[in-house]
Amino acid sequence: MNLRIPGPTPCPPEVLQAVGRQMINHRGPEFAEMLARIDKGVKHVYQTKNDVLFLTSGGTGAMEALVVNTLSPGDRVLGVSIGSFGDRLASIAETYGADVVRLKFEWGKAADPGEIDKALAADPSIKAVLVTHNETSTGVCNDLESIARTVRKHGDLLILVDAVSSLSSVPVCVDEWDLDAVASGCQKGWMVPPGVTMVSMSARAWKAYEQAKMPRFYFDVGKALDFAKRGQTPWTPAISIFFGLDVALGILLKEGLESVFARHERCGSLSREGAKGMGLQLFADERYASNTVTAVKVPEGVDGRDLTKMLREEYDTVLGGGQQHLAGKIFRIGHLGYVQETDIQAVLDALSKALPRLGFSPSRAAAS
Amino acid sequence: MNLRIPGPTPCPPEVLQAVGRQMINHRGPEFAEMLARIDKGVKHVYQTKNDVLFLTSGGTGAMEALVVNTLSPGDRVLGVSIGSFGDRLASIAETYGADVVRLKFEWGKAADPGEIDKALAADPSIKAVLVTHNETSTGVCNDLESIARTVRKHGDLLILVDAVSSLSSVPVCVDEWDLDAVASGCQKGWMVPPGVTMVSMSARAWKAYEQAKMPRFYFDVGKALDFAKRGQTPWTPAISIFFGLDVALGILLKEGLESVFARHERCGSLSREGAKGMGLQLFADERYASNTVTAVKVPEGVDGRDLTKMLREEYDTVLGGGQQHLAGKIFRIGHLGYVQETDIQAVLDALSKALPRLGFSPSRAAAS
Repeated sequence: MNLRIPGPTPCPPEVLQAVGRQMINHRGPEFAEMLARIDKGVKHVYQTKNDVLFLTSGGTGAMEALVVNTLSPGDRVLGVSIGSFGDRLASIAETYGADVVRLKFEWGKAADPGEIDKALAADPSIKAVLVTHNETSTGVCNDLESIARTVRKHGDLLILVDAVSSLSSVPVCVDEWDLDAVASGCQKGWMVPPGVTMVSMSARAWKAYEQAKMPRFYFDVGKALDFAKRGQTPWTPAISIFFGLDVALGILLKEGLESVFARHERCGSLSREGAKGMGLQLFADERYASNTVTAVKVPEGVDGRDLTKMLREEYDTVLGGGQQHLAGKIFRIGHLGYVQETDIQAVLDALSKALPRLGFSPSRAAAS
Repeated sequence: MNLRIPGPTPCPPEVLQAVGRQMINHRGPEFAEMLARIDKGVKHVYQTKNDVLFLTSGGTGAMEALVVNTLSPGDRVLGVSIGSFGDRLASIAETYGADVVRLKFEWGKAADPGEIDKALAADPSIKAVLVTHNETSTGVCNDLESIARTVRKHGDLLILVDAVSSLSSVPVCVDEWDLDAVASGCQKGWMVPPGVTMVSMSARAWKAYEQAKMPRFYFDVGKALDFAKRGQTPWTPAISIFFGLDVALGILLKEGLESVFARHERCGSLSREGAKGMGLQLFADERYASNTVTAVKVPEGVDGRDLTKMLREEYDTVLGGGQQHLAGKIFRIGHLGYVQETDIQAVLDALSKALPRLGFSPSRAAAS
């Protein structure tokens, strides 16, 4: 099965072998040694000297951790959103009592740093900016560097980033871009089954943590830091997933970050060019097209659900559908993590065979 | 390695093989079919017709879910505690703003239903009772049936139960005992690596859910129920662990609940009799001794940390240490999940060899 959804991604066999290892004591020396190795590797990928804390959760748990560890009820925050995950991050903050100013951009477009600049200038009471780096629902990758630079012009605001579907696949320079808390999840570019997520915390974020009054317990990164000092996590961790992450980091670091990023660029480019060459239209603004997921418009006359069903049942190819109002209107090709151009070519081949059966004739260029 | 801590427990090879399977789409038909199977099996073990929701977290996450889904800030609740995990559950409720009346019993003792009765009679404003079924830190298993009956005498109070280290190893009759929300975790008797937890919700609990005002997002069981209806979880689940749980349930149900409970009883009894036969003293009140974990006093003159270290390094045996003020003073033998009497006999043999080297002479009865 060619699993090409935007996470979980397939995992290398060595990773799966590690995931299937027998349990160990999560409060013993072997786990502590592994955690130290993982911590070092993850910080390298995050390009940071900040603390990185590990949680047992899905990506949404790490997003919740960004919020509850740095904010207090009533805090005014800017919730930048370009899609479903940006909306989710803002909703989490609202759920915990933040006063969220929502700055929404059309789905398929990137966030405009100029608009963020205006919003912050108009409201000096804003303490934090919530932003999605790579919006999985639309296949748009925000220019996080420019956004961060824009926010920082306004002072010591917290920059809280959902980098779940970008980090480890495309560059995220946590220290250089001065990002305060950054969430990622191992089921994405890290090439590991879901279950473990990470959050980095800058000195500014820790300062905010000391004053933050939103309730936090399971996702308390301060507790995670205390236990990390003795090579543990506060609560029983998903040990199997840590085993996998340990091995996957070895593979990633051996390939080298630059090569990993270049590979994602090539797979992203092949997905976009292949779809366009077939006569299909991309959903996302190409200037900000994501190198981890490509959203493609379902051609007129075709039902997107029929397409993903046929691909799955008859062509061994699993793609993502559209979320919310895009259900049936787009499909999404995940190209992150354990992926090579041949995997993407196989997706394109499957599409070029399935689409005509559903009434759409791909251009000759791609079908050849 | 004979891993005998009170969770994670070792896993059967078939379970580990399943855990190491390649990823699938968590929003596709294969996951939905698996979730339906798991749901059915788990409800059988819970002995309930209530909804059971699945979370990707450690056990503490499920404990947090008990609280945030049923209570509002300011709610007066009784926090019954007989050890570290009872204290934790009360602390979670306090963190989220509950007004917790703490009813503490000496570590090593069980909760006295008579005292609970008095506490509830004295304060009719109490809306919920937090209780640990099996206290992992002390090896005491509360008489949950009597406690629940006592609470119910006082009306429609919520009974919120941490059954993380009991459910699936000893009887927990959720419906018969009228328990409202009950948390468990798959790294215990379920014989699966950590990462997935469950919470059952009674009709009374759902009614409380509708009015509960504590903030909840990641651990929102209502969202979990919505997605469960389409065979999904709201957030990306720890798929590998679900694979394992699916296979482990097959093993548990084939053995049969009664046989599973009887096996835990035999292993618990062997641990206790073996330790006593060696001249060691049990920490817990024997009338309420847990059949999943046995806490043993470290004999005078021996340092508990030296003992667990020697057992690990020289006898391939991993036991739990004491928590908090019991560190170094007790050791704990986990006997839950994938365990047979031979595993416990091996622990006793290792103890009978290690203890003399640390200055304690086991009684002849056990050394023979």
